[in-house]
Amino acid sequence: MVHWQAPPELTDMPVPEPGPGEVLIKVAGAGVCHSDLHVMEWPEGTLPYALPFTLGHETAGWVHSFGPGARGAGLNEGDAVLVYGPWGCGLCPPCSRGAENYCRHAAEIGAAGGGLGRDGGMSEYMLVPSPRLLVPLGDLDPHTAAPLTDAALTPYHAIKRSLHRLVPGTTAVVIGAGGLGQAAVQLLKALSPAEVVAVDLDTAKLDLAAESGADHCVLAGDDAADRVRRLSGGLGAALVLDCVGADVTMATAAAAASVESDITVVGLAGGTLPVRFGAVPWEASVSMPYWGTRPELAEVIALAAAGKLHLPVKTYPLKEAGQVYGMLQEGKVPGRAVLLPQP
Amino acid sequence: MVHWQAPPELTDMPVPEPGPGEVLIKVAGAGVCHSDLHVMEWPEGTLPYALPFTLGHETAGWVHSFGPGARGAGLNEGDAVLVYGPWGCGLCPPCSRGAENYCRHAAEIGAAGGGLGRDGGMSEYMLVPSPRLLVPLGDLDPHTAAPLTDAALTPYHAIKRSLHRLVPGTTAVVIGAGGLGQAAVQLLKALSPAEVVAVDLDTAKLDLAAESGADHCVLAGDDAADRVRRLSGGLGAALVLDCVGADVTMATAAAAASVESDITVVGLAGGTLPVRFGAVPWEASVSMPYWGTRPELAEVIALAAAGKLHLPVKTYPLKEAGQVYGMLQEGKVPGRAVLLPQP
Amino acid sequence: MVHWQAPPELTDMPVPEPGPGEVLIKVAGAGVCHSDLHVMEWPEGTLPYALPFTLGHETAGWVHSFGPGARGAGLNEGDAVLVYGPWGCGLCPPCSRGAENYCRHAAEIGAAGGGLGRDGGMSEYMLVPSPRLLVPLGDLDPHTAAPLTDAALTPYHAIKRSLHRLVPGTTAVVIGAGGLGQAAVQLLKALSPAEVVAVDLDTAKLDLAAESGADHCVLAGDDAADRVRRLSGGLGAALVLDCVGADVTMATAAAAASVESDITVVGLAGGTLPVRFGAVPWEASVSMPYWGTRPELAEVIALAAAGKLHLPVKTYPLKEAGQVYGMLQEGKVPGRAVLLPQP
Amino acid sequence: MVHWQAPPELTDMPVPEPGPGEVLIKVAGAGVCHSDLHVMEWPEGTLPYALPFTLGHETAGWVHSFGPGARGAGLNEGDAVLVYGPWGCGLCPPCSRGAENYCRHAAEIGAAGGGLGRDGGMSEYMLVPSPRLLVPLGDLDPHTAAPLTDAALTPYHAIKRSLHRLVPGTTAVVIGAGGLGQAAVQLLKALSPAEVVAVDLDTAKLDLAAESGADHCVLAGDDAADRVRRLSGGLGAALVLDCVGADVTMATAAAAASVESDITVVGLAGGTLPVRFGAVPWEASVSMPYWGTRPELAEVIALAAAGKLHLPVKTYPLKEAGQVYGMLQEGKVPGRAVLLPQP
Repeated sequence: MVHWQAPPELTDMPVPEPGPGEVLIKVAGAGVCHSDLHVMEWPEGTLPYALPFTLGHETAGWVHSFGPGARGAGLNEGDAVLVYGPWGCGLCPPCSRGAENYCRHAAEIGAAGGGLGRDGGMSEYMLVPSPRLLVPLGDLDPHTAAPLTDAALTPYHAIKRSLHRLVPGTTAVVIGAGGLGQAAVQLLKALSPAEVVAVDLDTAKLDLAAESGADHCVLAGDDAADRVRRLSGGLGAALVLDCVGADVTMATAAAAASVESDITVVGLAGGTLPVRFGAVPWEASVSMPYWGTRPELAEVIALAAAGKLHLPVKTYPLKEAGQVYGMLQEGKVPGRAVLLPQP
Repeated sequence: MVHWQAPPELTDMPVPEPGPGEVLIKVAGAGVCHSDLHVMEWPEGTLPYALPFTLGHETAGWVHSFGPGARGAGLNEGDAVLVYGPWGCGLCPPCSRGAENYCRHAAEIGAAGGGLGRDGGMSEYMLVPSPRLLVPLGDLDPHTAAPLTDAALTPYHAIKRSLHRLVPGTTAVVIGAGGLGQAAVQLLKALSPAEVVAVDLDTAKLDLAAESGADHCVLAGDDAADRVRRLSGGLGAALVLDCVGADVTMATAAAAASVESDITVVGLAGGTLPVRFGAVPWEASVSMPYWGTRPELAEVIALAAAGKLHLPVKTYPLKEAGQVYGMLQEGKVPGRAVLLPQP
Repeated sequence: MVHWQAPPELTDMPVPEPGPGEVLIKVAGAGVCHSDLHVMEWPEGTLPYALPFTLGHETAGWVHSFGPGARGAGLNEGDAVLVYGPWGCGLCPPCSRGAENYCRHAAEIGAAGGGLGRDGGMSEYMLVPSPRLLVPLGDLDPHTAAPLTDAALTPYHAIKRSLHRLVPGTTAVVIGAGGLGQAAVQLLKALSPAEVVAVDLDTAKLDLAAESGADHCVLAGDDAADRVRRLSGGLGAALVLDCVGADVTMATAAAAASVESDITVVGLAGGTLPVRFGAVPWEASVSMPYWGTRPELAEVIALAAAGKLHLPVKTYPLKEAGQVYGMLQEGKVPGRAVLLPQP
Repeated sequence: MVHWQAPPELTDMPVPEPGPGEVLIKVAGAGVCHSDLHVMEWPEGTLPYALPFTLGHETAGWVHSFGPGARGAGLNEGDAVLVYGPWGCGLCPPCSRGAENYCRHAAEIGAAGGGLGRDGGMSEYMLVPSPRLLVPLGDLDPHTAAPLTDAALTPYHAIKRSLHRLVPGTTAVVIGAGGLGQAAVQLLKALSPAEVVAVDLDTAKLDLAAESGADHCVLAGDDAADRVRRLSGGLGAALVLDCVGADVTMATAAAAASVESDITVVGLAGGTLPVRFGAVPWEASVSMPYWGTRPELAEVIALAAAGKLHLPVKTYPLKEAGQVYGMLQEGKVPGRAVLLPQP
């Protein structure tokens, strides 16, 4: 990103030298994310970032070199790693339990992470400010693993906090069967005994959801909530995960939820859910979480390593970044696109 | 209640005989509750109850006699008891864990409990359909204990589900320092190490909140949320319990809450909180719980027995019920009024 | 049971009439359980039960008739039901949350439930003292469902309390691949993403465990704990469920467990695990739970209805009870035996 | 520590220069701990530490200077801080959630932290390998705060994991009313509504426990468990925290505990608790946790700042270290001793 409200530019950058405490990553693949489009479109001043910076907040690669003092137990040159996305202070209470997505010093830091105000992964090399932000990938292929850091971690975090509700006999609903939604369906099947219902406007996406393990697929529309209610024996869903976040999907979420449920919105389409007596079931909790934590990212990797999570990924050379963002804008990227920066 | 949208009438009733499985309670005191006013005011058809029935959904008394098959271990004639308020089927999953407030057969049953569609406690004797709905009072005085069943149980339930958030260094806010609010302040102090902030329009009620243990009292108004934020070191509150539930209090609640908080509305003043990106903090959960569970009522009694919960109660003879409801309507009942039916 | 330390006798009993609050069940099948052998073998005075009583603490059947006051919402004549096994007072705090296995009045009651001091299910009809002790079976076949009430509920309860530990990447171990162990393996696979390791002395049972979904099977012996440790990347298991409970299996459990794990013993072979510094990992919790709760039994039924739990059951006419107990004593009952009392 | 099985020596050390990622602390006070005596007494090879190193694993002070790359948001020169004691890799799953006490790379690291294999706080200056190991003290006095890092954090961690059991009406028992025990009593009163019972052989310590808020004090001995059982209405304690860890105290713990309780041993006197059917109540969990986590240390500081935790601390100049260890060995240090290294 060189200018606000302009497409990003591809430039030649020197290989950086890791400073004290830093680690240099040789990037294998960097995920292309819808939220990058927001970064490009929003006017100057909306985001608290200084320009220029390199895009790419989903990054996988290999440890290339350690800056002074950065080497420690458990990580070596050549290890395949994911870069944990939200970079906090590392010290405050949320950071101390690995929830850097909720760092209390975020405003002072002025950047949310690599690719979000600081140089990200759409480059041959990427500087990471601390080894704590790296999570070992084990035997997973770093060329395609990048989307685990956001497209999988975000729904994982949203689902994990509701697992205590997903006892046998309950139903979980995923609204929006795009990248996050597909991951959500797989995660729910891997983590819980709940029946999983996918809701989308697009039958092709519902077919993918069924392949991902959804027990039922429901076409979005006025009767979607009724259908969920019938599928759940009249109770409604113990968790509705709205991966769209528009007025209409949030209304469906509220209508499909059960008493003592979670209505969790991770899509950012700008919708509103008016919470009032009668509009949501008793003790249904409406919330909008953001991204996930470091220990959760290690758990996401373990799921993928166990073969329980397969994000549909398509790779492109980094030099095609412009075309890929264009396809994304037009809704023509099925699953998740990853840019490969190595020549 | 004999007619909808009419004041209740005081009539002579025969002492009922407990049928199979039932228990007859000699009533010591029956609490007068704001929600009774709704029952009297709302037009026919709003509530799914058949008339007539006796009011009184907060009841304390003594076990007078057991119907056939109702006697069992742990309960004897003469024992002081509270009547657990929401009467469910007793069998469904929520009822089986004591959450009869969320009975899945509530619609079929057509009454929420004694005083709410079935004969309640504003009478010398009250029939309770099962001994399971009685919770021993131990040495507590049943003449004044009735409000524990609702005015204390409702905030107890709302608070207990948030205790994991109320670690040392956090702040809890109670909006509305009336009956429920006073109980909420005491409960928060007894159950958690959080700093407690009371918010109300009425300085006299704030003084009572301070006596109940509130660490800070804040006058309701445009800057109330800012003051909470400053008192909490900029973080906002980990729990905001809104005992009013109007538009303005719900807006204050959202503005005063922290990331990863609970915004819990137990007041039913008809307000709306529009949940959208930016309007509530990340992962703040907005919900409206209803009443509480049977095991929680036993815990409320234990708190009162330990001297950690003192609801301010004033007692009146049952024959003054009309005047008391009048005072309640005019907001002239400080604390909680209890009617004593025994001559 | 007519006499202590004697085999049970088969006698003709009149069809009982349900008294107030009671429900009469027409029995479809009654499970035969190892613990019945203890009941027959232990000397008078070991168990606090009065003789005679009918055996059978795993019972499935149909609601035949309701005693006065027992009819309520959610249950009708002809409904297929399971009888929840541990019968408590129904009123005390544990009972009020459905944990009648831990009723505080158990000693006064003098019987643990039907078949355990009161007449159980090895009869054409069985009296159940309250409808609350019945859990609807839905479409499951009551002829074979009885073992869900104990052989599945016991490991379900033991596992559910550890699910928060069984995050992706963890390992769970089941020691003893008999009836409970097979259920435990299936439950772990249905409820968690953990890798499941079965340990047994008998390779035939390990083969069954593999069919039940165990990811790894390990022959019991001196190196079993080492093998678990290797299979778990050196960490040890986050849960070890010992379905045997002998000295040697408990030692294996302690050696196979990880830091911050649960070592849960549900087998009653009389073993001892000496807990001391160095003998169990840091913060490994050693405990022996008993049976399960009413809401958990409904969850077990939901799992079976969803096809995620298949106990291997073989049925026999009730009149062959003597032979079946003989086979059980000799270890010749594979899976679980159920007696069918209807002619 | 210069030699194993020898008293430590006081030597002049140059002021160290913080390397990359490191922070130099000017020490205000370093706590003297019983476990230091073990370090001095145990033969070479028992602990995996290389000699020499400076003792002192409870350290409070001020940030003196940052090494290259160590400066970040939220920490400045001159800030008063505690040094979090257990130093892990910072990267593995437990470390990523702040549980460096359970670092998976502990064995490779070969030291448990400053004062435990690496240079600790009994010196004018102390090097800390990362700012993440520092927790701001706010306005608390660093001359006396050091024992919060261990004598308070250890019982805090042990108690926090049991808070869900400590509902109103339950009882918590602290065995051993020394430094940790006094902290435990205060913590239980601040964090829970449980009745707190202190058990000790020494009536003077029990008097201190009463001052710390214990509701009941019981002299250790054969009938101690019976007295706890009577004080808890026959139920036993929902948590027994054994700060001694001898055979006899662990036996008392098991006898005093209730069904579904935690028996948590933090004292290391070398005792054994034989867990077997009948020897511990149903579902009582026996475990031995170690130290605590980074976010928990911030919570301990918040409790002390709120005036809810006052460890009785006596300070001595560092040059009197030899005498203080002698007093400690003879049991003559009431409360907690802190050495002040600044001249």
